[in-house]
Amino acid sequence: MVKIILDAFGGDYSPNEVILGAVESVNKNPDIHIVLAGKEDEIYAQLDMLKYNEEQISVLNASEVISNNESATQAIRTKKDSSLVRAFDYAKDNDDVIGIISAGSTGAVLTGGFLKLGRLKGIHRPALCPVFPTLVGGSVCICDAGANMDCKPEYLEQFALMASAYMKILGVKKPRVAQLNVGTEDHKGDIRAKETFELLKGNKYLNFVGNMEARDVMSGEFDVVVADGFAGNVLLKSTEGAMKGILNALKEDIKSSFLSKIGAVFMKGTFDRLKAKFDYSKQGGAVLLGCKKLLVKAHGNSKAGSFVTCVEQLYAMHQGKLIDKISKSLTDAGVKGEDE
Amino acid sequence: MVKIILDAFGGDYSPNEVILGAVESVNKNPDIHIVLAGKEDEIYAQLDMLKYNEEQISVLNASEVISNNESATQAIRTKKDSSLVRAFDYAKDNDDVIGIISAGSTGAVLTGGFLKLGRLKGIHRPALCPVFPTLVGGSVCICDAGANMDCKPEYLEQFALMASAYMKILGVKKPRVAQLNVGTEDHKGDIRAKETFELLKGNKYLNFVGNMEARDVMSGEFDVVVADGFAGNVLLKSTEGAMKGILNALKEDIKSSFLSKIGAVFMKGTFDRLKAKFDYSKQGGAVLLGCKKLLVKAHGNSKAGSFVTCVEQLYAMHQGKLIDKISKSLTDAGVKGEDE
Repeated sequence: MVKIILDAFGGDYSPNEVILGAVESVNKNPDIHIVLAGKEDEIYAQLDMLKYNEEQISVLNASEVISNNESATQAIRTKKDSSLVRAFDYAKDNDDVIGIISAGSTGAVLTGGFLKLGRLKGIHRPALCPVFPTLVGGSVCICDAGANMDCKPEYLEQFALMASAYMKILGVKKPRVAQLNVGTEDHKGDIRAKETFELLKGNKYLNFVGNMEARDVMSGEFDVVVADGFAGNVLLKSTEGAMKGILNALKEDIKSSFLSKIGAVFMKGTFDRLKAKFDYSKQGGAVLLGCKKLLVKAHGNSKAGSFVTCVEQLYAMHQGKLIDKISKSLTDAGVKGEDE
Repeated sequence: MVKIILDAFGGDYSPNEVILGAVESVNKNPDIHIVLAGKEDEIYAQLDMLKYNEEQISVLNASEVISNNESATQAIRTKKDSSLVRAFDYAKDNDDVIGIISAGSTGAVLTGGFLKLGRLKGIHRPALCPVFPTLVGGSVCICDAGANMDCKPEYLEQFALMASAYMKILGVKKPRVAQLNVGTEDHKGDIRAKETFELLKGNKYLNFVGNMEARDVMSGEFDVVVADGFAGNVLLKSTEGAMKGILNALKEDIKSSFLSKIGAVFMKGTFDRLKAKFDYSKQGGAVLLGCKKLLVKAHGNSKAGSFVTCVEQLYAMHQGKLIDKISKSLTDAGVKGEDE
């Protein structure tokens, strides 16, 4: 049995939905043990009402909670009895723990990953890699989506290798890697993009297909989109924002018109299918690749079902030996950095 | 009467839709003279069939055309008899020309602006500023949307001032300026964003409201979003791409379902209103701010109506004395650079 730690006090619907997700996960998979980190009285109070194999869930007591509104570095350094810091410390100290899942403050989760889990040997920077749905049914990984500002080209080369290893575990045989840029031509972009282009093009361990433009991220033509964390974050958030914006505008307009309300009833099937197609909860969380243990940042608004997906995602990465494969892929490609 | 030059051989529907747009424009406004640049035989052949005051349209012959598929710098330097280069040269040499409109290759239009029109005194870099609709009915200006890579913080400060002057002419009294960033907190971002934040915050001639995230670009909370050209381009293209993507997915799904097809008939009003709300052709083109004359880059797929909007936009900027106001605003704020 392998252990996965869930930060029970991270996310908009914590701790209830985290606990429900944990119970549902162990009920589905007899090989997983989940450690719930957080205020034990509250966790036990809810667990008592639920049915599950008691050998598959344990509790790691922690009296504090890290909120979204505090400095991440400060919180990780000082709130030693918070659910998140306890989770990281426990993961670090116990070999049978394969990874951590938290829907808490992105900054704190990333800082914890950097400071507590530590980088894999030779990794310049761990990268935040969300995967999101394309318009043609597959999915695309953005790497880095905001963990690293001011990236050097050699960081981006490592991101490409790490994300390729990840997408292979998700079932993509030869992940097509593209660089986010302002145009598709080879010479486009800022200094970093130009230098990165040459590195990616020259790396025979990558299936590099060239530069891509932000508008094509959901086209299905790419499996991995490599970017500096600033631009990757803009890409991710503007895509999410525009989709939400247009759907909200649609919803608001329907409300204002009698005919449209009738139309919407007929179109329920279409709306349900689109919702399912672009359902982020089905995509699991964003993985921080390049740490010594697996770390999944779940969406802040995750409910039980999303935590179940994240547990499955983390277990799949473990079974696929993702960390070993990342190490091997960097060694093979000869792009391991010196540990700083 | 003031002169505006239209590149008759730029854009997907050139020259026909450009010529139609020119005729429609002069028929609406007796104070405008339009110079159509391009192959004169083709232009006259179409003009002969249209009704307009002949004193308001003239033709500037040019035998070549710059395509989207050639190097912009090379094209501007060598294709001296192209419609675009002729347009720039004519604008430069004639005081009564207030500006240029082209729906041709973005790269060539920008390069022409830089090399041929020249920068206003003290401007570090001219910036490409499209304006696009927000979800609440107003509009927001992205500055810079891709003309400048590797921007320095002082460039971004000038962008903020130039775009504010522009938005004032579009009727916004005290344009709210935000910086595109990975989070809303003051200390967020890469080195450039942190330094730019301090400059913008310290500039009392700006109504700076802080950092913003890409997902909120259409929220209506900001009138000007300042960004390095790389990130601004990603913001613009991913927003456009996601909106198009979701609408296409909607359209495709409706086609596949009998009930949804019926529903779509009832919802025609909603779809028409949304289409009108997010209609880029009504927004005019993207302006290159900071050159000695006005320059509007129309969307590549512009039809006659869009060219009419661009002409009105350019005329409004002229009447609002945009160039003088940009100069004055930079002088007032004491941020004019040395001419390099």
